[in-house]
Amino acid sequence: MKADLDLLMRESQIAALLVLGATRHNPAMVYFTGRVSVSSAELIKVVGQEPRLYYRSAMEREEAARTGLQTRSAEAYRPKQLLEQANGDVVLAQAMRYRQMLEELGVNKGRIAIYGMVEAGTAYALFSALGRLMPEIELVSEADQGVLGRARMTKDAQEIEQISQMGRVTVEVVGLTAEFLSSHGEKGGVLVKKNGDPLRIGDVKRQIRLWLAERGAESPQGIVLALGREAAIPHSSGDDQGVLELGKTIVFDIFPCQEGGGYYYDFTRTWCLGYAPEPVQELYEDVEAVYRQIVELLQADEQCSKYQELACDLFEGRGHATLRSDPATIEGYVHSLGHGVGLQVHERPWFGASATPADRLVAGSVFTIEPGLYYPSKEIGIRLEDTFVVEPDGRIRPLATFPMDLVLPISRPSRRKKN
Amino acid sequence: MKADLDLLMRESQIAALLVLGATRHNPAMVYFTGRVSVSSAELIKVVGQEPRLYYRSAMEREEAARTGLQTRSAEAYRPKQLLEQANGDVVLAQAMRYRQMLEELGVNKGRIAIYGMVEAGTAYALFSALGRLMPEIELVSEADQGVLGRARMTKDAQEIEQISQMGRVTVEVVGLTAEFLSSHGEKGGVLVKKNGDPLRIGDVKRQIRLWLAERGAESPQGIVLALGREAAIPHSSGDDQGVLELGKTIVFDIFPCQEGGGYYYDFTRTWCLGYAPEPVQELYEDVEAVYRQIVELLQADEQCSKYQELACDLFEGRGHATLRSDPATIEGYVHSLGHGVGLQVHERPWFGASATPADRLVAGSVFTIEPGLYYPSKEIGIRLEDTFVVEPDGRIRPLATFPMDLVLPISRPSRRKKN
Repeated sequence: MKADLDLLMRESQIAALLVLGATRHNPAMVYFTGRVSVSSAELIKVVGQEPRLYYRSAMEREEAARTGLQTRSAEAYRPKQLLEQANGDVVLAQAMRYRQMLEELGVNKGRIAIYGMVEAGTAYALFSALGRLMPEIELVSEADQGVLGRARMTKDAQEIEQISQMGRVTVEVVGLTAEFLSSHGEKGGVLVKKNGDPLRIGDVKRQIRLWLAERGAESPQGIVLALGREAAIPHSSGDDQGVLELGKTIVFDIFPCQEGGGYYYDFTRTWCLGYAPEPVQELYEDVEAVYRQIVELLQADEQCSKYQELACDLFEGRGHATLRSDPATIEGYVHSLGHGVGLQVHERPWFGASATPADRLVAGSVFTIEPGLYYPSKEIGIRLEDTFVVEPDGRIRPLATFPMDLVLPISRPSRRKKN
Repeated sequence: MKADLDLLMRESQIAALLVLGATRHNPAMVYFTGRVSVSSAELIKVVGQEPRLYYRSAMEREEAARTGLQTRSAEAYRPKQLLEQANGDVVLAQAMRYRQMLEELGVNKGRIAIYGMVEAGTAYALFSALGRLMPEIELVSEADQGVLGRARMTKDAQEIEQISQMGRVTVEVVGLTAEFLSSHGEKGGVLVKKNGDPLRIGDVKRQIRLWLAERGAESPQGIVLALGREAAIPHSSGDDQGVLELGKTIVFDIFPCQEGGGYYYDFTRTWCLGYAPEPVQELYEDVEAVYRQIVELLQADEQCSKYQELACDLFEGRGHATLRSDPATIEGYVHSLGHGVGLQVHERPWFGASATPADRLVAGSVFTIEPGLYYPSKEIGIRLEDTFVVEPDGRIRPLATFPMDLVLPISRPSRRKKN
């Protein structure tokens, strides 16, 4: 949790965190600044001190001040003079400014963990230069130490409220989507608009983005609305030109965040328009049963990997291949059971191959449970997903609820379930 | 232009470009892939060869294939085996995969330029490891070589069509915003909704995001809708709680991009609700005159910095301070005249302090002209901005047009222009 940050830094012997980039769509930065619009900034958090925000342009001083953090203009470091001292080398001039900022805060040796979404080449050049300028420091990344990742792995009440609020937005928009689809007529086995033209996946997604925007949310990583054969490939986002065929599974995986790149929510339902053919119904029942059994067994203080194993046991018990029984399979249960959700849609704790003993369900964990089955050969894909929280008292509950119905009734279907 | 990439690579003796990250909100990647949803990928462009895309998860194979590029799954490099060879060091294992990918394409020495929006710490650790694994290569960044930046500095017909399309969306949404504001009543000098509550900046922005979403656009870097004192600070995005006061300047700077992070457009108008006080009117006339004089003089094959100087001449001639006459001023003309627009809202060519002789207006340049005046002490800020293109024949035209009226009439104003 955020409150543990100094403790985690001390544990990993990190003298300071240095975070670069904008204050939008930049999780490590937003974790400290909240949602403001500063286009280019640095943040330094020295162990035991409050974080400081350095904004690049004086024009952004008011935006920077909205963070409530101590702020300073990068222009205070006389960029022109630094550039002259660096013989016109902009990267070196920037590294010289970082050295000044760090030294001012008493950091001239020790381990500095670096963060922030920036251009890879710039980061490499900049930190190579800083390393040369400050040979007594050691630059480390999340991959080495994971200080921020470990802090972010559990959420405080304020963060959980923000994720819950996105959960409310999500299920509201999912409800509107179901109504929208159901309100369409059917012709030749596909949904059609009033003018008789087929409704397309792209039309539905545009509508969904609209409903999200109305609610202060956005979907920067896309929306999965994949039908039939595409639904059978877990991360296919669906073809915008695709039509909505009755009797095919639609995987609807929606993972919006607060506008500007704040907290996410992650949610999936699988629908069949009009009717569900028998093979779909059967596979759906398998997924739903596994979902319910796992959710029933969720318990605080357990390792996440335990539930991944359990999901494999349950699916294999029902006769499906899993990545455990056949690492190369693309049919059956082919992805991990869940993941943490926060300022990134996928973050720790991990449930699958990347899980460590530290990936546990503890108070403040926010995570998804999302079993699924995929049969490209049958053009069927099914996934059910909700986002859960571990309460301070260890109880585990979903942050938003939505019915599990498979069939979305269509107003004037011409076909009925055949069997 | 994209077609010049091999030439530019040869000029800078770059053996390969290596681009990391997602295919959304990642300009260097989107430049090659177009708009698809692959959450984690690498792209390698060897000089003289077609680019190749490596997707991290087999689940994303269909999305990757939509790029039309040659694709390969990263899983083909046996990540588990690599991780074992790297003794569990995930960063080293990834660097080992990059080495394999590069060597396979015949790159085992020379300069490799690295790109892509990723976590700074990861980039630094990864490329430090790759540099150790491949001592014969030299890793360079855009700051050193600028190969991609120089290619992207001029746009081909397909890119210009995409930017124009965003221009059409932008002026449509600006028109809707003007109508929306004008349709509100006034009470106590501020715009009010039907129920008598004041309309707030946040309400208007929410509506704007909606109109953008309806048109397949988004505004990942925010929207400037800043009134009065806030308008007088160029990059203040405006206070969501702020009310819309009559007779104050509103700077409305909108810079949306194609949904998912594609091509941008950049546009600003300044409005006064109901009436414009004399001092606002005067400053507005100065900005508009400078805008018109500059646009009149725009010519292909000129250096951008020439127009920056010209803007300073013109504003100083009208009695305003500029950053040239007083580098510390926060009153007068305090920012640069324009910038390139493409997959980033701000990119080369530069007009201000960062401009080099290579920052010129040439066929395929897409750039803004945006003079402005700011007087925080008077609570007045004014900026006018359009995005222009240099045609293949050297003619220069705005990519979208919108009226320049200062006053937005309000249906039932209780006050009138006083002078």
